[in-house]
Amino acid sequence: MNVLICSVGRRVKLVEAFRSELQKVNGRVIAVDCDPTAPALHFADMYEVVPRIDDSSYIDYLKKVCKKYEVTGILSLIDPELSLLANHVEEFEKEGIYVIVSDKQTVDICFDKYSTSQFLSDNGLPCIPTYINIDEVIRDFKVGKLDFPLIIKPRKGSASIGINKVYTLEELLIYKNETAEIVIQPFVNGQEFGVDCYIDIFSRKLINMFMKKKIVMRAGETDKSISVKDYDLKQLIERLVNVLKPLGPIDIDCFLTKDGFVISEINPRFGGGYLHAHMQGQNFVENIVKNLSGFTNQLQNIEYEEDLIMVKYEDVKLMKNVDKGIGTGQI
Amino acid sequence: MNVLICSVGRRVKLVEAFRSELQKVNGRVIAVDCDPTAPALHFADMYEVVPRIDDSSYIDYLKKVCKKYEVTGILSLIDPELSLLANHVEEFEKEGIYVIVSDKQTVDICFDKYSTSQFLSDNGLPCIPTYINIDEVIRDFKVGKLDFPLIIKPRKGSASIGINKVYTLEELLIYKNETAEIVIQPFVNGQEFGVDCYIDIFSRKLINMFMKKKIVMRAGETDKSISVKDYDLKQLIERLVNVLKPLGPIDIDCFLTKDGFVISEINPRFGGGYLHAHMQGQNFVENIVKNLSGFTNQLQNIEYEEDLIMVKYEDVKLMKNVDKGIGTGQI
Repeated sequence: MNVLICSVGRRVKLVEAFRSELQKVNGRVIAVDCDPTAPALHFADMYEVVPRIDDSSYIDYLKKVCKKYEVTGILSLIDPELSLLANHVEEFEKEGIYVIVSDKQTVDICFDKYSTSQFLSDNGLPCIPTYINIDEVIRDFKVGKLDFPLIIKPRKGSASIGINKVYTLEELLIYKNETAEIVIQPFVNGQEFGVDCYIDIFSRKLINMFMKKKIVMRAGETDKSISVKDYDLKQLIERLVNVLKPLGPIDIDCFLTKDGFVISEINPRFGGGYLHAHMQGQNFVENIVKNLSGFTNQLQNIEYEEDLIMVKYEDVKLMKNVDKGIGTGQI
Repeated sequence: MNVLICSVGRRVKLVEAFRSELQKVNGRVIAVDCDPTAPALHFADMYEVVPRIDDSSYIDYLKKVCKKYEVTGILSLIDPELSLLANHVEEFEKEGIYVIVSDKQTVDICFDKYSTSQFLSDNGLPCIPTYINIDEVIRDFKVGKLDFPLIIKPRKGSASIGINKVYTLEELLIYKNETAEIVIQPFVNGQEFGVDCYIDIFSRKLINMFMKKKIVMRAGETDKSISVKDYDLKQLIERLVNVLKPLGPIDIDCFLTKDGFVISEINPRFGGGYLHAHMQGQNFVENIVKNLSGFTNQLQNIEYEEDLIMVKYEDVKLMKNVDKGIGTGQI
C-alpha cells in the first residue's frame, strides 16, 4: 500500500512517521510539493515536484503520480488544498484511490473563518464573535458589545499570515479600503489549547482525542505545548465532532476564557502540533493505514500522560540546487 | 577540555556539533539556559538551568557552573549576553576560563544598530543610513534624500523582534511618542546575503569565510540559504574585519543594492544560519577547540561548493515538565 502526501513542505517528521508505519505493511510514502527544496520531500521513499495547487493541471498531475506509484490513499497537509481534494474525491475513487479528507461542506466551513463562526453559533457552540462588516463592528462597539483591541485576519488564511491587531477606531477605519476578504474579531485574552482528533473513515466515530495547552507559538505554529486532560474541553470537542462530522485527522484550536472554552479555529487535517499527540502514542498515521487497509479503527482508550512537554527545534538538510522544473526525485 | 555554552535555546544542532568535536579530545559540552524546556539543553553532555542573564547573580552562577564542570572555555549564542561576558572576561580568565567573545568595544558597536552604522560610515564602509531622530528623518525626506517605506527597529534588538515598516509621514509621526530606543532606516530593496567568519583568537586573523544568499526567512532566522562566492562581498568583509577586529565566530548580514553591497548587521557570535557553513566543511567548532587547546588556526583554504542549498525543518522532543527552579540536569 502506497500513500501520497501532498504539499509536504517542512513536515519531515510526519513524513517519517508515515514511512515507518507503511514499512510494516510493505508500503511506501510518496511526497509531492511544488518547491523542490521543500525539506520533507527528501525524507519520503519517493518524491515528485509538481505544479502549484492553483495550476489548472494540478489534479491531472496528481492522478499521474498516483498511477505511477500505485497509490492507495492521498492526503494533503495544507488548508487551501483540502477543498480542492474534496472537490475531486469521486474522480480519484473511480481510479481506486481513497482521498483522506472531510466532506466538501465540512472543509469549506473550516477554511472560511466567517463560516466557521456562523456554523458554531448556529449549533450552539461557543465561538469568537466574527464580523465581516466594519460598520457592524462600529455599531457593536458604540453600544458597548465589543471593545478594542480587535484582531483582523484574512477570511481564508492559515499559518497566522496577515494577522493584525488594532487598538483604535482610526486604525480600524483604515481597513474600510481593504480589498482582501477579512474578518474582525475581539482579541481573546485566554490560554490557548489545541486538540488533535482522529475520526474513523468507516464508522465516522471519534477514535482519538489528545488535548494540549499551547505554551509558545512561533511563525503561527505551536512551538511548545504541554499535554493536559480537561473534561469540559473533551465534552465541547465531542459536541463539535457530532455536528461537524469531519473525517480522518483534525486539529481544533480553543481559548479558555473567563466564560469557559471557546472554539477559535478548526483545521480538518494534521495540525502543526500533531507530533505531540503522536509521540504520546496517539498514532493517527497507524489509523490511516488501517483504514486504507479496509479495517475500522475501534475507540482507542490509549491513556496518555498529562504534563509532558513537547518542544520543537530545528534540524537542517543540505541539498543540490535542483532545477526548478517539475520532475522525479526517486531515492 | 569542557566547554560551556550559554543561552543555548533551540540550537540543538550546534550543541551536537560541539559535543561531537569535544568527544575527539575527551571533552564535554555543558549547556545552560534559564528555561528548563530549552530543547538544546537536553542534547548537551550536561546541563544546568540558570537565572536569567539580567539577574544580578547570573555571572556568579556561571562561575560556579564553570568550577563544577572544570570548564576551559565559555561562549554565548545570544546578542544581549555578549556585552555581559565581554565585561567579565578578566574575572573568568583569573580562574583559567577563556571567554570566546570579541572585545567589549566591538560587541557594543555591533549590538547597537546606530553605533554600527556610525562605525561603518566612519570607516568608509557601505551601510544603511540610520537615524535615531525623527526630525532628521523628516528633514532628509523633505530634501529628497530619503523616501518611504522606512523600517523602524529597536536600537538594540535581535531575531527581527519589533520591526515595523511605515509607508507614510503620518505613520512615522506615531513613533514620536515612542519611549523605547529605536532606529529608522530606509527600506533596502535588495537580495540579502549572510557571511559566516571565524577569526583566530591568537593570530586575530580571518581564518574562514562562508558566503550565502538568504532565500527564505522565518521568525527572523535564515530558513533556506544557498552557498555563493562573490569577490566584491569577500573584499568588503575583509575590510570590515580589518577595522572591527572581532574574535571567534561572527555573522555579517549584507544587502546587494544597485550601488553594490551594504552591510546591515553584524553579530559577533554564531549566526542563526551557521549550520550551512558547518555542513559545507567550515568547522568553526573545531577552530574553537583548537584555540582552547592553545593552538593557532591557520588560514583555511577549504574550498566550499557553490550553489548548495541548506533548508531547515523541525524536529521535536518530549520531556517531563521539570520544576522551573534552577538545578542540574546531568545526563
